[in-house]
Amino acid sequence: MSCYNLCLLGFGNVGRALAELLVKKDEEMREEFGIEWRITGVATRRMGWLASPEGFDLVKLLAGDVVANVEPQPYGVREWLKTARADVLFETTSLNHLTGRPAIDYLRAALEAGAHAITANKGAVVHGYRELSELARNVGKRFFFEATCLDSAPVFSLFRETLPAARLLSFKGIFNSTTTVILEEMEAGKSFEDGVRRAQALGITETDPSQDVDGWDAAVKLCAIANVLMSVPLKLDEIEREGIRGLNTEKVRAARDVGRPFRLVARAARTIDNRVVASVRPEQISGDDPLGAISGTSLMVHFELDMMPGLTVTSHHPNLQSTAYAFARTCNALKAQVNEN
Amino acid sequence: MSCYNLCLLGFGNVGRALAELLVKKDEEMREEFGIEWRITGVATRRMGWLASPEGFDLVKLLAGDVVANVEPQPYGVREWLKTARADVLFETTSLNHLTGRPAIDYLRAALEAGAHAITANKGAVVHGYRELSELARNVGKRFFFEATCLDSAPVFSLFRETLPAARLLSFKGIFNSTTTVILEEMEAGKSFEDGVRRAQALGITETDPSQDVDGWDAAVKLCAIANVLMSVPLKLDEIEREGIRGLNTEKVRAARDVGRPFRLVARAARTIDNRVVASVRPEQISGDDPLGAISGTSLMVHFELDMMPGLTVTSHHPNLQSTAYAFARTCNALKAQVNEN
Repeated sequence: MSCYNLCLLGFGNVGRALAELLVKKDEEMREEFGIEWRITGVATRRMGWLASPEGFDLVKLLAGDVVANVEPQPYGVREWLKTARADVLFETTSLNHLTGRPAIDYLRAALEAGAHAITANKGAVVHGYRELSELARNVGKRFFFEATCLDSAPVFSLFRETLPAARLLSFKGIFNSTTTVILEEMEAGKSFEDGVRRAQALGITETDPSQDVDGWDAAVKLCAIANVLMSVPLKLDEIEREGIRGLNTEKVRAARDVGRPFRLVARAARTIDNRVVASVRPEQISGDDPLGAISGTSLMVHFELDMMPGLTVTSHHPNLQSTAYAFARTCNALKAQVNEN
Repeated sequence: MSCYNLCLLGFGNVGRALAELLVKKDEEMREEFGIEWRITGVATRRMGWLASPEGFDLVKLLAGDVVANVEPQPYGVREWLKTARADVLFETTSLNHLTGRPAIDYLRAALEAGAHAITANKGAVVHGYRELSELARNVGKRFFFEATCLDSAPVFSLFRETLPAARLLSFKGIFNSTTTVILEEMEAGKSFEDGVRRAQALGITETDPSQDVDGWDAAVKLCAIANVLMSVPLKLDEIEREGIRGLNTEKVRAARDVGRPFRLVARAARTIDNRVVASVRPEQISGDDPLGAISGTSLMVHFELDMMPGLTVTSHHPNLQSTAYAFARTCNALKAQVNEN
């Protein structure tokens, strides 16, 4: 039995769902993977850097009653990781997608402190993948980011663990659910603004929905997948990007009526000279397209590989628990680590 | 660099595609996985048990010019594996789905000889999973069967490697392509017999298509997935099974015309008392069903997990190379084995 000290940087919806999930799966983790765990660090902007090397009381932690049992409390990420004797950092801070900061700095600090670094921040993958994965290799730890692109569906682990020696030729997907929800409202005769309000009511977009409707969210995910799975240094500004603001209800309804509804499609393909061309834009999807089955908040990716004509993975109606699960899905990796040591 | 002696039991379409694939991916296997290989055994009913401990000449082997360089040649599976110094057995013999024999005996022989056992035979999973996986654990080798149910798409490895500690509540899928092709022909106004001829022309069904059209093929795959991923001892005769012979062109067209076409759906679900109820039968599928996107020879499975509301995996238009790839996808496992040793 190996015991892991887990540190949660960010303790919002996803961080809390993760803690609840760990409690729920405690028995399986012991029995199936020989893994015990305790949460020894929690940090948020409001609470500061809290550490408890003997482990926090989970019931109190989830009830918001956080009293760390050491003092003085640390005052920065490195000291926090050290005081908490971190084995794994789960990072869910909000970040600037255009720079990946400060998430990248936190993840680097974790790896340098000898902890596995796991992030829910797609920007950290786009801007820090090469640096952080190389650092992880050098220190013999893992840098994982499975929940960043398709919520709970396996994407990066799918390739890493189940598709060895296959070459990804192209992929396309629906990576943003807000735009699907807005377009579906417009198909039902409502306005763009009605659609935004519906997405906000579902809790899937912000007060300012421009990250979603202007295609930034989809472009960052596209960029992360291309960088990792195609091994190309594609940059965000190399992606041709067009959001859904140019569509009106009439156009959206007409497209749906002929059985080829608009969706915000992200796509990337290798060129003959081994570059990658990539775009995010509204496209009409016919019923026989692999992406034709998408609806609501579901997300989907379709891969074309040298070894396989087509492989589609769909995550239906993800929720907080499934996001937390994607994020936490490191038991196998930890187990592998145990075997290697 | 580790060198593996591979033995091919069965050398039909899939066996040959596998040999071609190994040649094609030789460089990646060396560079990415540190794996070298040679084929030291080939056996078919016609050729007998051929072994060549130094490795067959692949060009000659693929051209059908097989001269083994040792004599006398062995006369049974155990002696063959020993003479060939087998590290991995790839098994693609034809078999009796109702018993799993003789594939199970060959796979047991391989494991007992200290070789990994990899089969393309779904019947061997249905009838031998418990015995063979336990034996594999005991001898520290692997028993793999990824290509048996959804051609090239990850199914068993998906759960084993990417979905730790998740509990499968139910699944449904389109596991048989012959019936989809027949139903699509009938939707186009042709007869059942026309559909069978088209499936035969595509090379996806036998002269006698009853294994496919009566639902046996789908039922065996359903049974394999339930046994492995739900850990229940579901038996073939516990599956409610109805093929597509009861449908006529009129009925099939009418269903398609209202947007709810017939497909042969396999499904299994846990009951409250932790049994599994399972069926294979024609069902009408609406457009918003996860299985609604299926067409042609594509195969699909939809999972419901405690941790995820829905995860769908689709393998589009599989071909011989993709089948061989699914079958050969053991580099990761072999690598893990190297790390463990």
